[in-house]
Amino acid sequence: MASLAEYFPFWGNITQLEREKLESSAVARVYKSGTILHNGSQDCVGLFVIKSGQLRAKIASDEGKEMTVFRLFEGDICLFSASCIMKSLQFDLIIETEKNTELWVIPPLVYKSVMDESAAVANYTNELMASRLSEVIWLIEQVLWKSFDKRLAQFLEQENILEGSDILNITHEMIANHMGTAREVVTRMLKYFQSEGIVKLSRGKIELADKNKLKGLAG
Amino acid sequence: MASLAEYFPFWGNITQLEREKLESSAVARVYKSGTILHNGSQDCVGLFVIKSGQLRAKIASDEGKEMTVFRLFEGDICLFSASCIMKSLQFDLIIETEKNTELWVIPPLVYKSVMDESAAVANYTNELMASRLSEVIWLIEQVLWKSFDKRLAQFLEQENILEGSDILNITHEMIANHMGTAREVVTRMLKYFQSEGIVKLSRGKIELADKNKLKGLAG
Repeated sequence: MASLAEYFPFWGNITQLEREKLESSAVARVYKSGTILHNGSQDCVGLFVIKSGQLRAKIASDEGKEMTVFRLFEGDICLFSASCIMKSLQFDLIIETEKNTELWVIPPLVYKSVMDESAAVANYTNELMASRLSEVIWLIEQVLWKSFDKRLAQFLEQENILEGSDILNITHEMIANHMGTAREVVTRMLKYFQSEGIVKLSRGKIELADKNKLKGLAG
Repeated sequence: MASLAEYFPFWGNITQLEREKLESSAVARVYKSGTILHNGSQDCVGLFVIKSGQLRAKIASDEGKEMTVFRLFEGDICLFSASCIMKSLQFDLIIETEKNTELWVIPPLVYKSVMDESAAVANYTNELMASRLSEVIWLIEQVLWKSFDKRLAQFLEQENILEGSDILNITHEMIANHMGTAREVVTRMLKYFQSEGIVKLSRGKIELADKNKLKGLAG
């Protein structure tokens, strides 16, 4: 468990007692891909320290539409699964695994008690929040002002990197749920991409046929 | 200047030295409505403590489109005009006065030096950021999933409250710049509102003719 030290840059700036508090309370967990770990602001499982795998934080509409707000990877810390540590965190994120994931869970009240006393931990938490806020503002700019073909090309490029394969096992529905739009909108644009020779479509699969063209489009 | 104490809930939890540091560095300023106080992430004027007036934080596209991200009023603290206090605050907000505004400016490095040492100040800053993040996530949900008529009705209701008048001195262009859309889209919807008897339009003015109907639409 000594390795929590590797994830938290404040480790050298907190007391031995605080380190022990965090270490002794952290619980190691393993989750299969597709598991919902946190659901809405009433939920407060704890802070996640991601050892391996991939998480997705999404918002959902009353009608069941979805949009990915950010993703988390190995070494990342997930603050919003511990939303009760701050009273102003008033939004309903859903956090789910996108790959098999190993993580530590630090109970919210333990983290909060350390953060309340330690300027180093509180300032670290501030930086975490600032970077999420930056991502969300970037996202709102994309949604407002970027054309959908560009956004879809960027999404396919990102998936290509994450999956390490030119054949993506992803449905149009799943893409729509990442991008906050309807399936039909995704299908229409993918068909256009296919007509341009950028992708080849088959059931549940998208093959990236011309990655240079895709890159040009993503800009 | 003793009154900084009224704005910062952490005042009782910092040292006398820290209080003096903040008080002695704060500069009182008065700005006319329509003044740009902060422009982008390279700018770092300082923390604003708003004594009276109204500010607007907006994002802008390369093509000059705009959207209001949040507004600040009497008693609010503006953190993002001191964006250099956190390295992860990587976004370009523009902050401008919407009414004649009185505020104190606390130099960023002074605030940062107090925040670096004081868990109370750092945790307070965390709460500020969390509430902004909550507003931005709310906003992205609106843009993605709320119909434009509802959003426009909500905007007019908010203006009605802020201005304390049923006659709003606002152009279609200004509304478009609040809502992240094009002027034509606003004009079209306002004309529909007028045909429904909800508003009466004249040059540079919108009269709220049926506030019950407006409320029903805003939902």
